[in-house]
Parts: sequence; C-alpha cells; structure tokens
Amino acid sequence: MKKTQARLADGREIIYFDESDDAVRTMPDPRDLPAFRPLPTVRYDALLGEWVGLADHRHDRTYLPPDDQCPLCPSTAERPTEIPAPSYDVVVFENRFPAFAAMAANAGPGPGRETDLQRQRTGLGRCEVVCFTADHDSSFSALTPERVCTVIEAWADRTLTLSALPHAEQVFCFENRGAEIGVTLSHPHGQIYAYPFLTPRTRQMLDSARAYRERTWRNLFADVLAAEQRSGDRVVVRGDLWTAFVPFAARWPLEVHLYPHRQLPDLPSLSGEERAELSRLYLDVLRRMEAVFDDTLPYIAAWHQAPVRIDRDLAYLHLQLFSIRRATGKLKYLAGSESAMGAFVNDVSPEAAARLLRDAC
Amino acid sequence: MKKTQARLADGREIIYFDESDDAVRTMPDPRDLPAFRPLPTVRYDALLGEWVGLADHRHDRTYLPPDDQCPLCPSTAERPTEIPAPSYDVVVFENRFPAFAAMAANAGPGPGRETDLQRQRTGLGRCEVVCFTADHDSSFSALTPERVCTVIEAWADRTLTLSALPHAEQVFCFENRGAEIGVTLSHPHGQIYAYPFLTPRTRQMLDSARAYRERTWRNLFADVLAAEQRSGDRVVVRGDLWTAFVPFAARWPLEVHLYPHRQLPDLPSLSGEERAELSRLYLDVLRRMEAVFDDTLPYIAAWHQAPVRIDRDLAYLHLQLFSIRRATGKLKYLAGSESAMGAFVNDVSPEAAARLLRDAC
Repeated sequence: MKKTQARLADGREIIYFDESDDAVRTMPDPRDLPAFRPLPTVRYDALLGEWVGLADHRHDRTYLPPDDQCPLCPSTAERPTEIPAPSYDVVVFENRFPAFAAMAANAGPGPGRETDLQRQRTGLGRCEVVCFTADHDSSFSALTPERVCTVIEAWADRTLTLSALPHAEQVFCFENRGAEIGVTLSHPHGQIYAYPFLTPRTRQMLDSARAYRERTWRNLFADVLAAEQRSGDRVVVRGDLWTAFVPFAARWPLEVHLYPHRQLPDLPSLSGEERAELSRLYLDVLRRMEAVFDDTLPYIAAWHQAPVRIDRDLAYLHLQLFSIRRATGKLKYLAGSESAMGAFVNDVSPEAAARLLRDAC
Repeated sequence: MKKTQARLADGREIIYFDESDDAVRTMPDPRDLPAFRPLPTVRYDALLGEWVGLADHRHDRTYLPPDDQCPLCPSTAERPTEIPAPSYDVVVFENRFPAFAAMAANAGPGPGRETDLQRQRTGLGRCEVVCFTADHDSSFSALTPERVCTVIEAWADRTLTLSALPHAEQVFCFENRGAEIGVTLSHPHGQIYAYPFLTPRTRQMLDSARAYRERTWRNLFADVLAAEQRSGDRVVVRGDLWTAFVPFAARWPLEVHLYPHRQLPDLPSLSGEERAELSRLYLDVLRRMEAVFDDTLPYIAAWHQAPVRIDRDLAYLHLQLFSIRRATGKLKYLAGSESAMGAFVNDVSPEAAARLLRDAC
C-alpha cells in the first residue's frame, strides 16, 4: 500500500491510500478556491453538561447535487472535483465545511468569552472525508474485502495522525448512508471527526465501565461480549476473532455491535489477522442488514474508539451499526421521548432482529 | 370547566375536559375491541446506564391513515373512532399502543430476568393521547388562548393523576408535530408519558443543577434564565411572568425555551395568571417559529417537569420547543455525530435564530 500526501487549491490536505505501490499522485488541483479559513465554535450547555458544535458556514454546504456534479468523483479534464486525480482507491481529505478545524495560523484566540454559564471556544479539531471507491454508484457493502482492508488502513492511519493534534480528545470514524439519514452526497464515503472534547456517549460508557471495574475488577465491555456469546440469543455471526450481536437493550430497530475478542483501545491496535477477519465480517453483517427489508437501508456505522488521552485501559474498540429502517416503507423517527428526554422506545425486539439477521442472505 | 371520566370498549380510560359546565358525556363506545392487555418491557443498557423501552406491539400501530379514517376525530353514526362522542373540546385517553402501561390485574410479575448486565422489567407506567380540538385540520398554533388554557388544565390534571401511579417516576407532556418528525396521525394531538424511570436528559440536568447548587448555593435554571434576560441577545419574547429565549448552546436550528419567572416544579403548580400568560406566549412563540420558513414546521414541544419523587427542589418547569427544519426544503438530521456519539453540531447560530424569531410575525 502506498500513501501520498498533497494539498488542494485552498490549502486543505488530501491523502491517497493506493493499493498499488507504484501509484503516482502529482496532478495539481486546478481550481481557484478561496483560502480555507473556517472558524467553527463550540459552546458548553450548562444544563446538560455537554459541548455543542456551532458551524454556520456548514449551512451552505453542497446539498444533494446531481450525479454529474458529484464533488467526490475523480476529476476529469472538463470538471475538476475535490479529488484532483483520474481515479483513486481510497482517498481522505479535509472537509470543506468542517464542524471542527485547526485554527488558521494567523487567527486570534477565537471568539472566546467565558462566564460560568456561557462558555464558548474555537471549535478546534478536524473533519475529514473518506472516499471508499471512485465508483459513484457503489456502496460500502459492495466493496471487496481487500478494499475494506484499505479503508481500515486509512482509518488506522488517520486515527494515529489526528490523535496527535494538540486539541484532539477523541477520533471518530463513521459512515452515514442514505438520504433518509441526512446524507447530502450519495457517493460512497465516510467521515472522520477529531473532537476537542470527549463525546457525551463515550463519557457515559466510560463512566459505566469505571464504576463496573471498581465493583468487580473486571472490564464491562468484555463482560457484555462474554454474556452475549454465552447466551447466543442475539448473536448474528461469530468469527475466530470478532463477534457480531444485537445488543440486549438495542435502541434501533436494526442494530448490530461488532466486537474484537481482544480488548483493544482503537483501530491502529488491530493485528493483521484481526483486520482481515474484520473486513469479511463487516461486509457480512452489512449485507445481512441490507437484506432484511425489501427497501433501501439508511444506516450509520460508528467506530467507538478509546479517547486520545484518558481511560484508554477502560475502553474497548467496537463498531456500532444501526439503521432507522423499521419496516419496508417505514422509518423510526426520534420524536419527543428520544429527542427531548433521551428515552428510547424500540418497536422491534432484539431477539427478533437477531433472528432476521441470522436468516438473511 | 367540566371533567368527565369514562371507559372505552376495551377498558381503556377516557377523560373529557369540557369548556362548558353542562357537557354530558354518556355515549358508550360501540366497538367490539379485544381487551387491552399490552405488555411492554424495559431493558437496562449497562454500557450507557439508561433504560430503553421495548414495545413490539407498537410496530403495528395506525400509520398515516387517510383523513376519513382518522381515529382521533369524533365518532359518527357510520364510523366509531377512539372518541365515542359527536364532538369534544379537549379529550385524553389511554394510548392503544403504549410504550408503558399499568400491569393487567391478572398478569404475573412480567418477563423479569435480572443479571448484572441484563436487567429486564415490565414497562410499567402509562401513555396517554391528548386531543387538542375536534377539528382534524387545525393545529396547536391555530387554537384560541382559551383552548390552550383548557389544554394546560388537562396537562396539569393528568400530571397530578399520573404522578400518583405507584411506579411513575416522571410525567412528560409533549407534542410531536409533522410527518417529517414521525407523526403517524395528523389530527392535532399531543401525548403524555408516565415513565417508570428518570429519563436520561432529566437526570443529566438535575445532576448539573445539584453540582451547581453545591458550588454556588443557587439554582442553575434560575441563573440561566437571569443570564438570558440580562444579555437579551437570544430573548424572543418577554412577558410579565414568562420569558422565551433561544438557548446559548442550542442543539436545533430553531429552538426556544419558555421559562416561568418563578421556580416551579411542574404544571399543576402554575397560578391562574401564569396559565393565562402562558397560553398567549406559547401561541406567540409557536406562530413565530412557523413564520420563519416558507415551509411546513415539523416540531417537538416538550414540557420539562420535576421528577415525581426526587429533586423537586432542584428542578425548574420549562417548555422546550424545537424544530428539525433548518431552511426551506431542508431538514436537520441526526446522523453519526449526534446519534452515535451524542455530539450535536448546529448549523444556525442561536443569536441569528433569535433575530429571525423576533422579526417573524
């Protein structure tokens, strides 16, 4: 595999991950773009104790362009895109409309203003786009296992690099898929966020894991995995190094968690064998999920990694795959109970979902 | 106002709140319905430390029926509905597809099974539907202030009644509006949930309020309100007894919080003057929100009340109104960052949203 770094016309970084070692990436970005100087901010919600990103500039981001205007397709002589290359395998570049970004070298301390109840800071961090294939009409589930391995290499590489940013507290690799879930570009791609704070869900899980360890001297995630393997009721597929199961208290109609059998903090820690089996099981689970309903499957694939600086011994790398599809022609929406109170109600029993997934394909 | 209690054919309770003191509600429910015996369950998510409702029977609930099949319209001779009356003002009845319900008298202890990591219990509690008007084509924002007062009476009455249920920990009055937010019935209505647990959002807010009180001896919510009133940047409307503002760290493109000036635990505690001003300001704010975009406004209106048993001195009654509309023709979706990590990114600055709302109408 060959990795090549370059810059786009506005100064953003682009990194090619090529499966062939003799790939040459020297084509310049011919576009005339204004300098990249986003200034996202974050504000602290004193009632909920959580940081919220504010990014007005994202409001005008590219929205469902026609296929022949896709900014993630390779460039042609007639139409330069975000990727100045005639083709690519996997490519990563800085998001032009980021929710978090490094401060421009000449920027001041940002729009800071701090009172006890109203704290605001620059939204430091980084947002990257990961294109999985040059084929506009493909999808993650249609990739080969070899290509998924290249994607995993890219995730691991970016996790290491972004973890070294001075303000990064957590690196999140994910894929949003489907217009029903708000995806504005249909070209197969994912994203990586480097957050300047610990995300609320991660903090919650680590708080639970800490309390559990103090009580039992054991790891919470490892014991959850062991309980699922023991019962088997919700297991979807079990490999030598990974197990996929529907969680006991699933929030979403179709939700699968994929755990490595070893407790690892993050993607860079995976061995070669673990990456190889992951690439096959990831595809297997995703294809099962897509086969359950006779309909499109909008989904979110979210990698839970350890924070950059703290609690790395408590965390446990895992992939959370979930869909808002609850039936053919029907979606699950987050309404009052979920969105205002955080109390989820799931209409599909986790055991029934696991049966559907085991029987799929 | 006159309150009349009755039973539907399957045993569910129905309560009429009539603006005229001589309303007579004696029409029986002519339908032949199977006995109402829902058995929802709740499961504890050991990783996130939250209860999740499981309600398979909800999966088959009425879904976007044609207008002439609306179950919330008054009954006619030809078509009996959920409301066996030729008309009504405000009516409340038990949801036929509840996420939480009282245990049937002859039910066992429910599908309980408890290990440290897999706790499941009966989903005790209650779910009610509140119809705001017999007029199918109306909306909350089109109600008169007098009718809103009747709705407030109904909410207050039900809050008191449901708070007395043996397993209720929290009573939540809310309205989901708009197909884009998952509303399956377009007839103007809201819902009330009595939860058998403290909801995650409420617990978070009360934890923050407790820490703040220990540090300052002051009430967090009261100080947030005072800071908003002092700055004025995000105030939308200010009355004698209530103030509406966009929160400093708003998560949603259009979000308004409406606080009474007195610290009160819940709706039943409101004085007559507070109810009267609330009915006018609620309508004013909702109409402003609907006027911002040249498009439908899917929204959630959520009443944050004190828990039934604990922390009633820390809590502060307030209404949270928010929409997923971020522009004409565009919605905000909860994708990977929000749904998997709980980290919100808002594309609209709270100050800009407050300006739009002040200038609306």
